[in-house]
Amino acid sequence: MAEQTVRVKNIGLRGVTVADTKISYIDGENGVLLYRGYRIEELAEHSTFMETAFLLLNGHLPKDGELERFERQVVQAREIPEFIIESMEKFPKQADPMDVLQASIPMLGIAEQELNEETREANVRKAIRLIARVPAVVAAWHRMRNGDKPLPPDNALSHAANFLWQLTGKKPDSEIAHDFDVCLVLHADHTFNASTFACREVVSTGAHMYAGVTAGVGALSGPLHGGANARVMQMLLEVEKEVKSKDEIARWVNGKIQKGEKIMGMGHAVYKTIDPRAKILKVMSKRLGKKMGRDHWYEYLTAIEEAGYKEFEARGKSNIRTNVDFYSGSVYTLMGIPIDIMTPVFAISRVAGWCAHVIEEKFAEAQEKPALYRPEAEYIGHYCGEIGCSYEPMEERK
Amino acid sequence: MAEQTVRVKNIGLRGVTVADTKISYIDGENGVLLYRGYRIEELAEHSTFMETAFLLLNGHLPKDGELERFERQVVQAREIPEFIIESMEKFPKQADPMDVLQASIPMLGIAEQELNEETREANVRKAIRLIARVPAVVAAWHRMRNGDKPLPPDNALSHAANFLWQLTGKKPDSEIAHDFDVCLVLHADHTFNASTFACREVVSTGAHMYAGVTAGVGALSGPLHGGANARVMQMLLEVEKEVKSKDEIARWVNGKIQKGEKIMGMGHAVYKTIDPRAKILKVMSKRLGKKMGRDHWYEYLTAIEEAGYKEFEARGKSNIRTNVDFYSGSVYTLMGIPIDIMTPVFAISRVAGWCAHVIEEKFAEAQEKPALYRPEAEYIGHYCGEIGCSYEPMEERK
Repeated sequence: MAEQTVRVKNIGLRGVTVADTKISYIDGENGVLLYRGYRIEELAEHSTFMETAFLLLNGHLPKDGELERFERQVVQAREIPEFIIESMEKFPKQADPMDVLQASIPMLGIAEQELNEETREANVRKAIRLIARVPAVVAAWHRMRNGDKPLPPDNALSHAANFLWQLTGKKPDSEIAHDFDVCLVLHADHTFNASTFACREVVSTGAHMYAGVTAGVGALSGPLHGGANARVMQMLLEVEKEVKSKDEIARWVNGKIQKGEKIMGMGHAVYKTIDPRAKILKVMSKRLGKKMGRDHWYEYLTAIEEAGYKEFEARGKSNIRTNVDFYSGSVYTLMGIPIDIMTPVFAISRVAGWCAHVIEEKFAEAQEKPALYRPEAEYIGHYCGEIGCSYEPMEERK
Repeated sequence: MAEQTVRVKNIGLRGVTVADTKISYIDGENGVLLYRGYRIEELAEHSTFMETAFLLLNGHLPKDGELERFERQVVQAREIPEFIIESMEKFPKQADPMDVLQASIPMLGIAEQELNEETREANVRKAIRLIARVPAVVAAWHRMRNGDKPLPPDNALSHAANFLWQLTGKKPDSEIAHDFDVCLVLHADHTFNASTFACREVVSTGAHMYAGVTAGVGALSGPLHGGANARVMQMLLEVEKEVKSKDEIARWVNGKIQKGEKIMGMGHAVYKTIDPRAKILKVMSKRLGKKMGRDHWYEYLTAIEEAGYKEFEARGKSNIRTNVDFYSGSVYTLMGIPIDIMTPVFAISRVAGWCAHVIEEKFAEAQEKPALYRPEAEYIGHYCGEIGCSYEPMEERK
């Protein structure tokens, strides 16, 4: 309106640095992802999801019994308060698991004995309860919607194995349990992605951790964010049904790219080379495909990848590479995880990162921490001159 | 890390223009607030909350039966689906109304027959259902926590009057009903505040309107955002109990300011002069105080305001003025609204703006609309050189 200067609009906030962080780092040019300084490849190879969650929340790898204590606290928090199950029993069975999860987080907040205790220590304890209970809610709803009773946790099982048990009613073998644990490590944090930023934005008003994580679940439910691995799986099933030879796959991929369609699981907002997580999942996809008698899925996926790279390169887009979602859909399917539980599985892992970011947003030292996020927008609407429009009585409106 | 340039950090995104908008405009220097081009004073005087909600959602004042049709649609959507009430019956009675509200929005989404219908028209219909049902949920929970049954809506009553009836079990007189309606008009939108931005951020991933509004409720629950009017009321009750004369009040206010404490309801991130909404609420507070035999509240509040202005001016901060929250707490209390229902009442009104912003985020023309919000952060953590740390086995950790 009376604006004299032309403002640069920050489309989608790309390239706008909104805060300092000590939690994770991406070098998109070189395909590097660090959690608290550690390379994702190192953590995937040597660590566990429990240890990684500890690292994200506390800033250092655990020592001297810290890991045992942390794991014990998570195991002790696995049971969901009874009123939440009773409440979920009232939900219509066709409810989407992500909507059920989003409804359940404020309920977990209601059950939280330290809800308004705003110390760093209390927030770490809340994070432990969330990390323990998000998988329990996802598994419980999946059972309930199929008319089954939720299964009690098996405290002898690891975090990863216990989720698969509570979800499917089958105890995974050690290979599957380990692979699923690696998947949880790979998805646990990814700097200021849309869901993590939503968590931080909400708690910047002083809202509690559960209110923030509820927003994170909402952002993750969007198809542009958490829904991509399920879509890759749908694409794979389509390919399995309709095309068979490598040549046919290449033609199908080229046709899609020529029409300007996206290839699900390829390209990334931040990575300009292969996503380091995709490399690990690719190996896993091959191994599990063989184990479960679905070798051809891996062949189809690599054929899509190869054809996609070739076609993108021919168009000067050699920075479009496979991302974390490309191989994870097939991996999850091979583990017995249904397609519409794949985004909730993302949440089961990412909740560790969300909670670490909530704690950083609440307790970082003043110079690192932004105030409540309150951006501006450029008004390009109607205003009738310098002071705004007068209200026209109904009969005078045109 | 390998960063060569020093980046400007955008603390709290203040002054960072993130999108175009046609919904509302604030001129903070001159105390102007427009909704869709209309001055807030004009709307408060001549319009109603139903008409204002129509205006925010559709971009123009209704004509030729549009308002009747809109009001009829809202009235028809007032009943909350039964499973939501049954689910809320399982909640512990001490649950905070904002946490219950946040849990209920995804449930309203689950009940939404057009949940994944992503057209502008379907989103306007979803908005109508949210505007109708957010007050119903707030009123129902307040009844239930007191051991009462939720009251059915009275379709002969206006939106504002029906909420007060469903909340308190008493039908308000026409003056109170009108004043509450004006309060809803005043709070319905306010550009890119933290809760509205949270809604937009979440739906920028393609998530549905309910997922976004759930995030908005979370952000509003923070004491720095939606909690201020309740805190002003607590301050007023403290003053009523402890100090009596104008001089004592001035000393009390000066003492607080000298200690660097905030005076609740004074100062604003955007307004550098009196908030235009505060002027309207001040008049209402005086009139309702007289009507309800609480004239002294208004006297206390104006004494706090006067002493605050004087002390802030003496400190060169003459831009700290009363904001929308300063008089609304007393107004709501005079209407029979409990302190912990004041933030939910904010949501009952603001949901109209949230939904309008969700629709703008989803359907604005491409050049106006940002992509998914994905900001950056500056990594100031640990990294062990250029490639990240190696994982140390447990026994080698120091």
